[in-house]
Amino acid sequence: MIYDCIIIGKGPAGITAGIYLKRYGYEPLIIAKDGGALERVKDIENYYGISHITGPELLKAGENQAKAFGISIKEEEVLEISKELHFLVTTNNGTYEAKTVILACGTSRNRYAKADNLEGVSYCATCDGFFYRKKKIALIGNGKYMAHELSVLENICKDITVFTDGKPLEAEIHSSIPVVLEPINKVIGNPHIEAIEAGGKSYPIDGCFVAIGNASGFTLAKHLGIGLKGNSILVDENLMTNIEGLYSCGDSIGGLLQVSKAVGDGAVCATSVSNYLKMHKS
Amino acid sequence: MIYDCIIIGKGPAGITAGIYLKRYGYEPLIIAKDGGALERVKDIENYYGISHITGPELLKAGENQAKAFGISIKEEEVLEISKELHFLVTTNNGTYEAKTVILACGTSRNRYAKADNLEGVSYCATCDGFFYRKKKIALIGNGKYMAHELSVLENICKDITVFTDGKPLEAEIHSSIPVVLEPINKVIGNPHIEAIEAGGKSYPIDGCFVAIGNASGFTLAKHLGIGLKGNSILVDENLMTNIEGLYSCGDSIGGLLQVSKAVGDGAVCATSVSNYLKMHKS
Repeated sequence: MIYDCIIIGKGPAGITAGIYLKRYGYEPLIIAKDGGALERVKDIENYYGISHITGPELLKAGENQAKAFGISIKEEEVLEISKELHFLVTTNNGTYEAKTVILACGTSRNRYAKADNLEGVSYCATCDGFFYRKKKIALIGNGKYMAHELSVLENICKDITVFTDGKPLEAEIHSSIPVVLEPINKVIGNPHIEAIEAGGKSYPIDGCFVAIGNASGFTLAKHLGIGLKGNSILVDENLMTNIEGLYSCGDSIGGLLQVSKAVGDGAVCATSVSNYLKMHKS
Repeated sequence: MIYDCIIIGKGPAGITAGIYLKRYGYEPLIIAKDGGALERVKDIENYYGISHITGPELLKAGENQAKAFGISIKEEEVLEISKELHFLVTTNNGTYEAKTVILACGTSRNRYAKADNLEGVSYCATCDGFFYRKKKIALIGNGKYMAHELSVLENICKDITVFTDGKPLEAEIHSSIPVVLEPINKVIGNPHIEAIEAGGKSYPIDGCFVAIGNASGFTLAKHLGIGLKGNSILVDENLMTNIEGLYSCGDSIGGLLQVSKAVGDGAVCATSVSNYLKMHKS
């Protein structure tokens, strides 16, 4: 099945976009591992029409609203998006095909603060793996997204060490890959990364890939070569990125990080996608 | 008292802007005669977090939410906005002063379709009255806004006839002004307006002023010399018009005419106003 639109994110922007697309007569699929930033919000009092609600309650109400319209929501982790004839969205559970994609997955960059200002630190194996093809590299992360990045790097780099930074390894990786489970004490280098210290030991490296948590909108955008503006995804007035058919809305595109604005974005974005789909019927 | 901001309109955009401004620590005043377009909406199912609600219910919920924050809402009809040192907003009940103004009063242009394409038809006595200073003019309207426009025209034009287009006269005007209470049958002219036919009689005129219903955002904008884009008020990315301190959001600025988008606009607009007030403290 080819969906009209895959929406990544089930916060206010993603759910609103889904509801609008469904009502415009299209078949959207929403994929998200969780509700993002709103899950940690205790009190919302500035969302028009609702005097008081918690983040989780609002997320639940939104999901139920989408489900009542018959919209399919999959709780899966998006690992990669690619574009061939259509968009292919790969999750931990499979690959889905769609004519358009909306990135509505919030601001999280999953940055690794300790290494963030150093040269030689990358957030995209597909983009930068090739630069380190004969080098010693570190890969920081412990879950499925790390394993996905590892699968890309394994084909390119010979000497990879995974650092879980004190977290348990939550994905299966090849037993030949060394894994350091101790917390990272220090990242050394100036300006280029040189070594990672963990568990009292220093590991000299030439480069470091960060794949903590889930693939954020920022990370997915980097993989696809989407234009960025600071930490945000760059969009035009129709909320389309520089890749045709790929849209973004809500916190991902920056500006006011508020439910109100995300909901407005979602409606506008779905309308743009609907117009796009109308013009590209074949 | 000088308000930090007067918001004209108590629909989703206006109320959201009010709530945000209040929470940013400012004192807003909301003025609106009614809830606008939403009052006539029966079913809303695409507003995030609320499965089903009627327009009037949502308007009521929004107003109660604003009042719970201690925001003052005045049910008055705005007749004019002017700018001296501060903004002066004149209603049927008095004049209010504010450092900034947000026009959140919807799309209604109160146009008079029969005359709309003719030359010599104006929607702003202050703007265009002078062009007709020795001419015979018609003024179409029957309420307080018509009476306000008449008060401007009386100082400029000698020969004014009011056409209520079949509606009862709902404002007090000077007894020397002829009033035609019959419905307008026809507007004659090509391309310039020449006559109005009502009640079987033809009234030759040189120009016509339209002041039907309330002063719409469009009309108020015209009076102030605000830049327009088609039927909408032109704003920059901060939702400010070409007049400093004067903002607009919601349906007034065009785009998607939806609660979702109005709410997003309101939040963004209030944030811009808050930043403006911070920079212009004196």
